[in-house]
Amino acid sequence: MASTTGTRDRILFASAELMRRGGYAGTGLKQVVTASGAPFGSLYHFFPGGKEQLAEEVLRGGGSFFLALFEHIADEADGDVVAMVESFFAGAAETVRVTDYQDACPIATVALEVASTNETLRSTCAEVFTSWLDAATRRFEEAGIPKDRARLLSLTMLSALEGAFVLARTLRDTSALDAAGAAMAHATRRALADRG
Amino acid sequence: MASTTGTRDRILFASAELMRRGGYAGTGLKQVVTASGAPFGSLYHFFPGGKEQLAEEVLRGGGSFFLALFEHIADEADGDVVAMVESFFAGAAETVRVTDYQDACPIATVALEVASTNETLRSTCAEVFTSWLDAATRRFEEAGIPKDRARLLSLTMLSALEGAFVLARTLRDTSALDAAGAAMAHATRRALADRG
Repeated sequence: MASTTGTRDRILFASAELMRRGGYAGTGLKQVVTASGAPFGSLYHFFPGGKEQLAEEVLRGGGSFFLALFEHIADEADGDVVAMVESFFAGAAETVRVTDYQDACPIATVALEVASTNETLRSTCAEVFTSWLDAATRRFEEAGIPKDRARLLSLTMLSALEGAFVLARTLRDTSALDAAGAAMAHATRRALADRG
Repeated sequence: MASTTGTRDRILFASAELMRRGGYAGTGLKQVVTASGAPFGSLYHFFPGGKEQLAEEVLRGGGSFFLALFEHIADEADGDVVAMVESFFAGAAETVRVTDYQDACPIATVALEVASTNETLRSTCAEVFTSWLDAATRRFEEAGIPKDRARLLSLTMLSALEGAFVLARTLRDTSALDAAGAAMAHATRRALADRG
């Protein structure tokens, strides 16, 4: 018999997959029940706030996962922020390819849907994006890039990554991720050279 | 009395606004009827394919509009592709601000929702993105940038723009569009300098 913790996790995992691929409005609680194999009652037991609560936890969970992935890649690059940027974009392209263009950013689909329609979820997405921007800014600063420049570079890098995900999933090829990754590696090299 | 052409256009306009802001799954035909003031029967009269046909026309219409806007900005810049890029990102930031962070890319929200769930609409989104990439590539080539480099620059620019739209709408500020615009203007300058 699955433990209750297992049931809660299965519900979250199924919701994350459905929302990442088809969005918030397109994910029905019945689909979540079917995909997770959890009884309908347990969904409301664990998530009394219903679909909105489920989405909030999915967004925070996806945010933490992506952040941990970024920190791992940054640690592996060991201070070489150009290698960090290249590795992050190459890993993104690989993930998109091996999941047949289904899995890219864990929160962007929902972020665009809720930005003008659900203030609770918009603000959760904003917190997640900000946590990623903070993490990237810190790594660039540790490499000696001044704070303001490090922030601009992080904003540009995350923009290029998110947009390249949109193009990759839609065009079913990774050329946008490859092009954006190369451009961001160059922008990082330039920021390092400008340290003086 | 509104003409029948007027009714069809009102349905399309209302659908475009609803889908751009809240997505495909989140847009109900009842909302379209309410927002357009069109009778329910006329919706199926003009769009016998229902919501999918409506979305397809919305995507193509948004695609043509954005393309015409880009061509207009490019014409105004009169061959100065750096000014073209700066002007396009500045205009995007201005639009996002004046619409209270509601209106950005006319197709991205739907593109992310349908990429893995509706092959007809994914392929329509792919055609639209490709038409924009072709237009940008042509302008860069006309400025003397070699074809391959012009394509990479277009892919990077559209990625940065789309991702900056995601961040701007979510964070409710235009810093990502400002940062991405400056970075893309620089990348364009570099491509021009590399012409040799």
